Amino acid sequence: MAEDRGPLIIIGGHEDKDGDRVILKEVAARLGGGRLVIATVASHEPEGYFDAYKMAFGAIGITDLVELYVNEREETRSPETRAILEDAAGIFFTGGDQLRISSQIGDTPIEEMVREIHRRGGVIAGTSAGASVMSDTMLVRGSSSETHRIGDLNMAPGLGLVEDVIIDQHFAERGRIGRLLGAVAQNPRVLGIGIDEDTAIIVEGDRFKVIGAGAAYVVDGTDVTHSNIAEARRNEPLSMFGVRLHVVSSGDTYDLKSRAPASGRE
Amino acid sequence: MAEDRGPLIIIGGHEDKDGDRVILKEVAARLGGGRLVIATVASHEPEGYFDAYKMAFGAIGITDLVELYVNEREETRSPETRAILEDAAGIFFTGGDQLRISSQIGDTPIEEMVREIHRRGGVIAGTSAGASVMSDTMLVRGSSSETHRIGDLNMAPGLGLVEDVIIDQHFAERGRIGRLLGAVAQNPRVLGIGIDEDTAIIVEGDRFKVIGAGAAYVVDGTDVTHSNIAEARRNEPLSMFGVRLHVVSSGDTYDLKSRAPASGRE
Repeated sequence: MAEDRGPLIIIGGHEDKDGDRVILKEVAARLGGGRLVIATVASHEPEGYFDAYKMAFGAIGITDLVELYVNEREETRSPETRAILEDAAGIFFTGGDQLRISSQIGDTPIEEMVREIHRRGGVIAGTSAGASVMSDTMLVRGSSSETHRIGDLNMAPGLGLVEDVIIDQHFAERGRIGRLLGAVAQNPRVLGIGIDEDTAIIVEGDRFKVIGAGAAYVVDGTDVTHSNIAEARRNEPLSMFGVRLHVVSSGDTYDLKSRAPASGRE
Repeated sequence: MAEDRGPLIIIGGHEDKDGDRVILKEVAARLGGGRLVIATVASHEPEGYFDAYKMAFGAIGITDLVELYVNEREETRSPETRAILEDAAGIFFTGGDQLRISSQIGDTPIEEMVREIHRRGGVIAGTSAGASVMSDTMLVRGSSSETHRIGDLNMAPGLGLVEDVIIDQHFAERGRIGRLLGAVAQNPRVLGIGIDEDTAIIVEGDRFKVIGAGAAYVVDGTDVTHSNIAEARRNEPLSMFGVRLHVVSSGDTYDLKSRAPASGRE
């Protein structure tokens, strides 16, 4: 029943909260008047996050908002916490630390409810850390503004709402092409998707569409003929030949199954 | 007589000057005991540049160094200035502003003498601005750490010592993949070569070899199926499908004619 699944709105961080709010409006439009849960789980200090989104969504008419925060894993089993997600039309994971999301809610009733919302057509949105956590294997740490050095990358199991991709965020702004190439070199089965700030991909079925101010970069390792990822010594720079790279920007789409981009202008 | 031409040593900036000096040693090894001209023309304030290189090269046994600086274009015709380049075994262009190099020495006797040194087998090295200026068309200005926006790129005619490429420097460190993609989108005939700091490509004949701490990125637009560079409105983000990207690092080579990388490990 993959066709009934709701959209994933995966945002590269710093989405516009007081201007045109292109991305937040897209989230809003898909709620159908229902409740949106703002999950601030990624943050060690959640104060302020919920208020900022309350203001930003309030200004575009979304007022049925509720915060989900988890101090300790055991809280995920309390009826109060679970009640927050009952009947939610969507959930929005804010930024912070992706490992905090996965370690607090992974394999808990909350995670199961998130999947359930997704399955029954609800919106699952996430920005920054909330974007990274969407994939099967997520990027946790790796140097920005540097060519990837062998061994300098931490990955961990994510929520797995989208398969066979690795997502990176704040992409152009933090110079993260190096680490995304390093991640794809480790196993070219996964597609690398780097999303700029104030930019989102909306995944529906096997396709995604890009909206917002920047671009999404797709790193496809299908035709890679050589990489030194397994042979080189730790800290040596990456060597990787034959990467296919697409820059997909507002209006463009990308088919995750056939690995083909299409222009929004055609 | 392309075979007799000397090597071009094109450096991405910030080459190591007090550690292993891998790149400076490579320059030194190719001088055959001859004089090296340090051209500080790129700088508006050349003070200090020459002394820094004097110290760095002196420590590896290169002491026959002379500075070339040009305050005004008319100086390029003086016998004193020309005498500096007579019998030089090599020339090293330091960093600064690539437009200063091209505007001060372009179409002057100095430029002709640089070509002559290259033709008769001398070393032509350049770092940062001195790297950019090596190509036919050089990148002058464009945003770093950002997806390329249509129109946000200034290019100018360079010295043209290497044809059909555009060189960018401080590449991973300043997040410049966006602007290099933008440059290649304008005409995929040119190959984009982005060079990391403390990294160099050594061009000999149709091939280059990579040395140093980082990597060189080759952006090959041969198979690009779509770009919005000519249709999109100014400031819209770039859209570009089907770029071939190679990360070539220390020991790897790249054939500029066949557009094929080869591993240094094979």
